[in-house]
Amino acid sequence: MPVQTLEYPKQPFSTVRRYDSRDPPDHQHEPAGQCLLYGPGHAFPQTLPMIGQMGSFDRPSADTGDVLDLYLHGYVSSRIMNLSRKKDDEQKKPTSNEAAPAAAAVEYSQSESTGLPITITASHVDGLVLSLTPNSHSYNYRSATLFGYATPVTDAAEKLWAMEFITNSVVRDRWRHTRVPPNGAEMQSTSLLRVKIVAGSAKIRSGFPSDDKADTGDEGLLDRVWTGVVPIHTVLGEPTPSTYNRVDPAPGYLSDYVKGTNTYAAETALEQTTKAMGPKSKTDG
Amino acid sequence: MPVQTLEYPKQPFSTVRRYDSRDPPDHQHEPAGQCLLYGPGHAFPQTLPMIGQMGSFDRPSADTGDVLDLYLHGYVSSRIMNLSRKKDDEQKKPTSNEAAPAAAAVEYSQSESTGLPITITASHVDGLVLSLTPNSHSYNYRSATLFGYATPVTDAAEKLWAMEFITNSVVRDRWRHTRVPPNGAEMQSTSLLRVKIVAGSAKIRSGFPSDDKADTGDEGLLDRVWTGVVPIHTVLGEPTPSTYNRVDPAPGYLSDYVKGTNTYAAETALEQTTKAMGPKSKTDG
Repeated sequence: MPVQTLEYPKQPFSTVRRYDSRDPPDHQHEPAGQCLLYGPGHAFPQTLPMIGQMGSFDRPSADTGDVLDLYLHGYVSSRIMNLSRKKDDEQKKPTSNEAAPAAAAVEYSQSESTGLPITITASHVDGLVLSLTPNSHSYNYRSATLFGYATPVTDAAEKLWAMEFITNSVVRDRWRHTRVPPNGAEMQSTSLLRVKIVAGSAKIRSGFPSDDKADTGDEGLLDRVWTGVVPIHTVLGEPTPSTYNRVDPAPGYLSDYVKGTNTYAAETALEQTTKAMGPKSKTDG
Repeated sequence: MPVQTLEYPKQPFSTVRRYDSRDPPDHQHEPAGQCLLYGPGHAFPQTLPMIGQMGSFDRPSADTGDVLDLYLHGYVSSRIMNLSRKKDDEQKKPTSNEAAPAAAAVEYSQSESTGLPITITASHVDGLVLSLTPNSHSYNYRSATLFGYATPVTDAAEKLWAMEFITNSVVRDRWRHTRVPPNGAEMQSTSLLRVKIVAGSAKIRSGFPSDDKADTGDEGLLDRVWTGVVPIHTVLGEPTPSTYNRVDPAPGYLSDYVKGTNTYAAETALEQTTKAMGPKSKTDG
């Protein structure tokens, strides 16, 4: 099956992040990416759905061609926040007796190995791939995995920046149309993680089905079986006002965003339908 | 934030699988669920996008109210298949010197701890939740996590059954409209995993935004900020024929499936928009 696999650091990071550059932050609505971590004492990897965005506090104008951090938004009480806080505290103690960070962390540069090692995944399905034989059926999809070290954001300016950044990723330009800035209690109760990415990979399948010659040469089969792709995309529906909403109709920045996002999503699914795959593991950027 | 958390085995399994029962198998198009495993010698949990379906070979008529296995479809060469095959072989050797299965596996009954411990996640976003303050912004979503032990399916009859089951989950009734049965080489090159589920949990957010009284009592704020939910659903587009397709127009079973799936998805997103959350951790069925 023609699946394209990209791996960082074997290939330029911008290539690995093709997934991101194709789905600009404000069009990415698979935000409940899964964050995985080794839970101490668990037989199974632990996982949490979280909201995340790639960005840089130090260089806010950086784009997906640059090395970015991943900002994750969660709740103070949640396990991942507690674990990363604990891990960060442990590693900051110069006299700590605690065990060293997970053994394999030394694969990566020491300066980056502070924090909790986590894996972040996001995937998006672009189409149903219907071929002549059941075995060649597939999905068009783009799936990305990042590996990195998570630490809580403690600097107030960085926290405020990340809150604005993430809010505007829900709906473009939403932040300044809400009650801002957050008050002290809100700043306190909101936890954010910054993940320093040390490795990543992507798997992508696009294009039409690929059947064996023995089957595409079978006239009877070709006359009988429909083959092709059913493109799949995500649609934002009609904004539905809450019981206490008084702003009617929905504001322009919101309806523009809904329209733009839907157009982009439909076009991308069609593009992925007709886009031929490169040879396996070949980069295209 | 009103997130509903359900946990197996604390609650009936059918409640935990509310996610599945709401999205019947042939409407589930987040198939690239992430399968996580501990990779030996890795600092980070490893993850792979895979296609999966809940079902029972022994009791084919079982529904989501029953205890089901998870069937995963992958490729012979892929890491998860190799690991689970190795794990299964190791555990079958009575004289093996290999280390015991992961320590915490003994939390679960011994009979179930054969195979590779993996975590499977799937999540679906149902809407953007826009509140008065940035901090109360959220997403409506349904996210499920399953923990289980994976072993390769070796029995030919079970393998054939699972291949049909998974093919018909891409498009309802697709199997008998393709070139079947698979030949020997296809049976050989296709690998399937059966996962015995030992635990699971779900996180769900639904309904309108929830703002603090201090904000909902602020008249100026209510006059200025639009609040509500933008429902999100997945759309199957127009079936796009491959270069070698000769069946025109697309067959009825396919266009019916596209239509039915889209209607169901749009209705579900609206239902999740208006559906009030139960108290935290309370089951609703």
